Amino acid sequence: MKLYEKLADEIEEAVRRGVFAPGEKIASVRQASQQHGVSIKTVLHAYAILESRGILETRPQSGYFVRAKPQAGAPRGEPTRVIATASEVDVSRLVLSTLRSIGAHDAVPFGSPYPDPGLFPWRRINQYANAIARRHSSWNLIDDLPPGNPELIRQIARRYAENGVPVDPDEIVITVGATEAINLSLQAVAKPGDTVAVESPTYYAMLHAIERLGMRAIEVPTHPAEGIDIEALTQIIARQKVAACMVMPNFQNPLGFQMPDEKKRQLVELLSGHEIPVIENDVYHELYYGDARPSTLKNFDTKGLVLHCASFSKSLTASYRIGWAMPGRYRAQVEKLKFLNTLTTPSVPQVAIADYLRQDGYDRHLRRVRRLYRQQARIMSAMVERFFPPGTRTSTPQGGYVLWVELPERVDSMRLYRAALECGITVGPGHMFSTRNAFSHFIRLNYSYPWTAQSEAALQRLGELVGKLGHDKGDRT
Amino acid sequence: MKLYEKLADEIEEAVRRGVFAPGEKIASVRQASQQHGVSIKTVLHAYAILESRGILETRPQSGYFVRAKPQAGAPRGEPTRVIATASEVDVSRLVLSTLRSIGAHDAVPFGSPYPDPGLFPWRRINQYANAIARRHSSWNLIDDLPPGNPELIRQIARRYAENGVPVDPDEIVITVGATEAINLSLQAVAKPGDTVAVESPTYYAMLHAIERLGMRAIEVPTHPAEGIDIEALTQIIARQKVAACMVMPNFQNPLGFQMPDEKKRQLVELLSGHEIPVIENDVYHELYYGDARPSTLKNFDTKGLVLHCASFSKSLTASYRIGWAMPGRYRAQVEKLKFLNTLTTPSVPQVAIADYLRQDGYDRHLRRVRRLYRQQARIMSAMVERFFPPGTRTSTPQGGYVLWVELPERVDSMRLYRAALECGITVGPGHMFSTRNAFSHFIRLNYSYPWTAQSEAALQRLGELVGKLGHDKGDRT
Repeated sequence: MKLYEKLADEIEEAVRRGVFAPGEKIASVRQASQQHGVSIKTVLHAYAILESRGILETRPQSGYFVRAKPQAGAPRGEPTRVIATASEVDVSRLVLSTLRSIGAHDAVPFGSPYPDPGLFPWRRINQYANAIARRHSSWNLIDDLPPGNPELIRQIARRYAENGVPVDPDEIVITVGATEAINLSLQAVAKPGDTVAVESPTYYAMLHAIERLGMRAIEVPTHPAEGIDIEALTQIIARQKVAACMVMPNFQNPLGFQMPDEKKRQLVELLSGHEIPVIENDVYHELYYGDARPSTLKNFDTKGLVLHCASFSKSLTASYRIGWAMPGRYRAQVEKLKFLNTLTTPSVPQVAIADYLRQDGYDRHLRRVRRLYRQQARIMSAMVERFFPPGTRTSTPQGGYVLWVELPERVDSMRLYRAALECGITVGPGHMFSTRNAFSHFIRLNYSYPWTAQSEAALQRLGELVGKLGHDKGDRT
Repeated sequence: MKLYEKLADEIEEAVRRGVFAPGEKIASVRQASQQHGVSIKTVLHAYAILESRGILETRPQSGYFVRAKPQAGAPRGEPTRVIATASEVDVSRLVLSTLRSIGAHDAVPFGSPYPDPGLFPWRRINQYANAIARRHSSWNLIDDLPPGNPELIRQIARRYAENGVPVDPDEIVITVGATEAINLSLQAVAKPGDTVAVESPTYYAMLHAIERLGMRAIEVPTHPAEGIDIEALTQIIARQKVAACMVMPNFQNPLGFQMPDEKKRQLVELLSGHEIPVIENDVYHELYYGDARPSTLKNFDTKGLVLHCASFSKSLTASYRIGWAMPGRYRAQVEKLKFLNTLTTPSVPQVAIADYLRQDGYDRHLRRVRRLYRQQARIMSAMVERFFPPGTRTSTPQGGYVLWVELPERVDSMRLYRAALECGITVGPGHMFSTRNAFSHFIRLNYSYPWTAQSEAALQRLGELVGKLGHDKGDRT
């Protein structure tokens, strides 16, 4: 356990035992540093953690106080509103231009959709790639035709089995990232013009798949802690033909929730009852903050209607773009579409990852990353509360590495995005997560990077910009 | 110059000078080996080359004779016949199962579509990939968002410019192999239900792209030495709406022709006149047998209607699946579709190839490969003539590494494919190259692998199987 975690636990325990009363001011950072014989930075870290746990709060120019009524990070309790009609999709230009401007700036990467690449065990994976050259002087591409490299498929199936997800290795098809897996899965189950139900807000890669295939999206209200609203989805299905449903039950991007098992079961039962296939995007499955890997929709699937998609890009390496699909009864179609779409997935990355999984410390790496993200989630959440104006609300991520922030309603997040970019700070504007303007005062913040003085200054500046935009009159774009 | 080339040249010169008369028997392999003080293998090689040049011929149980009338490898002079109506496409299952059975057997790889991976400078490329790990401890995926890695794009543009192909680097979009480039290009210019004109026979990846997008193919007669029949295409365009045309003007797979410049110009003019975009698959452009890299359709394009697609998979490494598109006026659409389809192309392979191109001996590697393929084309052609029954005709490849063989009409190439597989030999059945049964007595043979005693025995066995199937009665599948 780190020193600041130990300190935070001690103070929390003291509050619980009544050593500090609710509303009481506690030691300043400088005082606490001297009292406990630790650095200023350690105290700041500990206090930030305690803020995010709802134990402490800051008051401007006054210092840290024990919270009157501890609360759990102010999750937004109501689901998003229903958007009743399906709509055509064209968000990709906004997303691509946003991602590109994020890349073009040497900026504080709050807007990045990618995990801190500094956490990837890149040198070790590369050692395996390098060793392949010695083993295979003449590489046989045909060995890795769809469904993909057999050893990699075995390793992926083994990890699912160890986590209680029922998997037949023969069901797995290796793809170019989860992006291709999602695209092929959607193409296997629906055709141009069809309507597809998605969460609201939804991860834009889902909207891209719908856009690419000329389908229509219907956005279903989604609870920030429990996922897609099953009652609302039931009503939608009763009213109109829904060809497929696309969801992210674990650590949804951007909301960060983990759908409870019971809800997962209900969702699969509802859709199965109508023979509607469901595409499950589970790319964050390894980045849980709880004690164990969460269940998947696959666990509740009895009819082969769940097309499960995932990848190594969030948890191991983004540079190789290795993903996979487990398409249930649509396996043959997905394999064929894979072959038509990109022929094969590059073989060296497949074998290098298979070797890493078999021989190296993937679980050790994951334990470290999960601990970091869990801590950084609390810090980011506490810091937003500290620096952003009243009326700001944040999600409570159960995994992954993004925070969803609702700004005061006057603040247009595209204007914030542009203003922040000029200060060398990026954010993910809420516009990317809907085909409607439903989230124009929301932003997504990435907290996978280590918390530094620079990020703190950047977040403070961002809070000031939010305050300024909230007071501006008129022209919201 | 290799010893066997020298020997072949000497004998050819002797024939030209009249030292040996037409029809005269020349020294047996064993005698020649003693006379010239070279190995049996060298003589066999030299004689094979002379057969393919039309200087010598073999007569069963009799030996080698000077040919009465030298001829140039019996190219098939007439174009394929017109197929007048567009048809739905579903060849991918056959192709995938064929490729997979080719991979499943430790067989003589005449049926493989891939070049001998033993020729790829794999260790050197891997050294660059390995060095990337030292340069980039934290890799920035965003740098390689579509259109792709900037340095790789510069290197590709430089090579085109050096070969007289007009290229704006900003036009290039990096893709997962040429397969993705072709798919995205077709999706950018045509929609489901549209009719697309293709060569006949056509490379099956073109048919796959059409099948994937639910379009229809119309097969245009194609001359084995000059490419798509422009007169026939003119008639088709006059009769019906053609949304796009897909061709392979250089070293077409399976025919191996290089379309003459004048024909390329005519083709682009015809299509431009009707505002019909043309997708040019140029994956074999580096594997020419002539003195210089051939022109492309791009050279004759004034309206931005040529969508040029290519890759490194045939000439440098197939394991990395790095291709590109130069989509003319459709550049923005292709870039967007790339982003939707697979997000980004894996970055390490892009940078490793860029480094190899900048710093290593790509041209030296290519000179060696071209020389080998040119020699092996002659050997394969001569050996088919030697071992296959009368009525067999072969193409005259100008580049690439496949020979197209027309068998006697009674021989069904799927039956041959299955019979050969039982003997541990693979072939590419003609059925893969058409939506109709137009090439059911054709096969494609891969000659990229070094010619060995094993391949010679296998080809002889194949010739016997062809003879046997040609005499079988009835049930042609």
